[in-house]
Amino acid sequence: MKNIVTIGGGTGSFTLLSGLKKYPVNISAIVSMADDGGSTGRLRDELGVLPPGDIRQCLVALSNSSDTLRELMNYRFENGGLEGHNFGNILLSALEKIKGNFSLGVKEATHILGVKGEVIPVSEEDMNLYIKLNSDKILIGEKQLDHNREVRKYGIKKVSLKPRAKANKEALRAIKKADMIIIGPGDHYGSIVSNLLVDGISRAIRNSGAKVVYNCNLTNKKGQTEKFDLDKYVEEMNGFLGKKRIDYVIFPFNKPSSVLEEKYQKREGRNSIVFFDESNKLRRSYKVVLADVLRRNAIGKNKNDKIADTRSFIRHDSNKLAKVLMDILELENKKLIKKII
Amino acid sequence: MKNIVTIGGGTGSFTLLSGLKKYPVNISAIVSMADDGGSTGRLRDELGVLPPGDIRQCLVALSNSSDTLRELMNYRFENGGLEGHNFGNILLSALEKIKGNFSLGVKEATHILGVKGEVIPVSEEDMNLYIKLNSDKILIGEKQLDHNREVRKYGIKKVSLKPRAKANKEALRAIKKADMIIIGPGDHYGSIVSNLLVDGISRAIRNSGAKVVYNCNLTNKKGQTEKFDLDKYVEEMNGFLGKKRIDYVIFPFNKPSSVLEEKYQKREGRNSIVFFDESNKLRRSYKVVLADVLRRNAIGKNKNDKIADTRSFIRHDSNKLAKVLMDILELENKKLIKKII
Repeated sequence: MKNIVTIGGGTGSFTLLSGLKKYPVNISAIVSMADDGGSTGRLRDELGVLPPGDIRQCLVALSNSSDTLRELMNYRFENGGLEGHNFGNILLSALEKIKGNFSLGVKEATHILGVKGEVIPVSEEDMNLYIKLNSDKILIGEKQLDHNREVRKYGIKKVSLKPRAKANKEALRAIKKADMIIIGPGDHYGSIVSNLLVDGISRAIRNSGAKVVYNCNLTNKKGQTEKFDLDKYVEEMNGFLGKKRIDYVIFPFNKPSSVLEEKYQKREGRNSIVFFDESNKLRRSYKVVLADVLRRNAIGKNKNDKIADTRSFIRHDSNKLAKVLMDILELENKKLIKKII
Repeated sequence: MKNIVTIGGGTGSFTLLSGLKKYPVNISAIVSMADDGGSTGRLRDELGVLPPGDIRQCLVALSNSSDTLRELMNYRFENGGLEGHNFGNILLSALEKIKGNFSLGVKEATHILGVKGEVIPVSEEDMNLYIKLNSDKILIGEKQLDHNREVRKYGIKKVSLKPRAKANKEALRAIKKADMIIIGPGDHYGSIVSNLLVDGISRAIRNSGAKVVYNCNLTNKKGQTEKFDLDKYVEEMNGFLGKKRIDYVIFPFNKPSSVLEEKYQKREGRNSIVFFDESNKLRRSYKVVLADVLRRNAIGKNKNDKIADTRSFIRHDSNKLAKVLMDILELENKKLIKKII
């Protein structure tokens, strides 16, 4: 069986893994450890544990357990001292305490939940995202990205991890024997860059013999990836990887609905939808795979329901994305791929 | 296979069930729902759930899952907003919320934990123990028993449940088809009487064809069962059952160590160790089975370690107790039984 490594965190990895797990491949999900918001942030602060939230989502995506157990993992308490906590986060924190180590706790959760594949924290060390703004002010913590107005106002100059964090050996082992490494989807700084900044990860990817596929973001965030187009995203990625290492970039062939586009533009400004300039005859070091990977409700087929449109998000479709990836791995036929540039 | 019903709650049921589960019998553990102290009390108050603590202990006792999963169930958080909560209590509360009903949540936990047998909340209704003191003052809540000084000062006149609670149908079904019903060990009011006060339970026991065995308490509590001897305990039980329904009473043949006895007397007064007056030629409606059922460290064989003695408790031995019960059920030979009166 082919060995697949995914790199990301949170909802993006959940989407990707939910689709991938249906194929006969060995999956190792490497997960960012920079999260410090919400329930996860409180558990980090109060219990001194590593952030469980992103790991939880990957475990649920890959779990073959009953619907109830999956629902339980995502259950959020609504009252009292437990308010806002996800049950799954509490489980992972308790397992870390019992096993004395976050990775061992995650392994135990893997057994309890009947997970297909493995979920690997990118590092076993406590880390924080340091965000240097163009105003030279430094913000600490991933949660600042979406909750601090100064990010939107000044924009980001540079991000780094403090303290520097060493890669989990299990992550390096998985990357070394990978046939395909899939980066994203996920928040650019919060879920992708926060993995690549961990000491040893970029080097391992550079040195691996795997095909490296990048699921480029579909939308931009003000102050973070403002006005990035596809080629700019890949340039950034290759920058963090230290080499033109991206082999394939997967990107939607079709456009999101105009209603949805307006909604994003209102919030994130012009160019909030990532653009691919096909007419730009750059000499690219990567192939752009244009394919049918948008989630149906983002395409806006339902012309009679504009309200549903405004409530939707521009996201990847789990099954379509997996199909295209398997296609690149030559385990599928090319039905969803429209064009390779 | 023989059908065994146990009635109790908390540590007493844990001890009993841990031993019983090693035998080829069908076990239905009926569990008190009166607990309102500690983590359990907070979850009741804050989330409006039924009390999970005693159920948790029975699930762990009957679980065939890994040591880690059992340890996890009993893991107690030490910091932050989760401080003092048992992980297992949080699990049961989340499952109640997801399944919409405590009993269904407990059943789900039974699957997750690979439980041998079934654990049945005595009632699915919210209840509180009302404790009327000899001073005529009324205290509300089981936790008052051990934490309110007035109990020790004035003593208990009567306990009742408010609101009145109807028995769980599953509990009645289990009692009806039982070959043996085992009452206790457990706190007299908190774990035993709180079960028998539930509407329908005593009637079901009266009408059942099962052998009824009572694991009489070993120690007395000031203000609660002060100066009770074995025969007084059984009289109380038969009173709550509405009929001389107890067939067998199991009681230790041997005495606790003198060091331990002194420790109990210091705290609970004279006669803090339950006494059986063999010379009293009462015409008893029950057989007293004197057997080797004390936990080893309560017997105080270790004469060189008086400190260990004072740290011990007078408790039943899980395996010995189960052996004697299987003996009464004629599934064992009589090695541990010294005498039947």
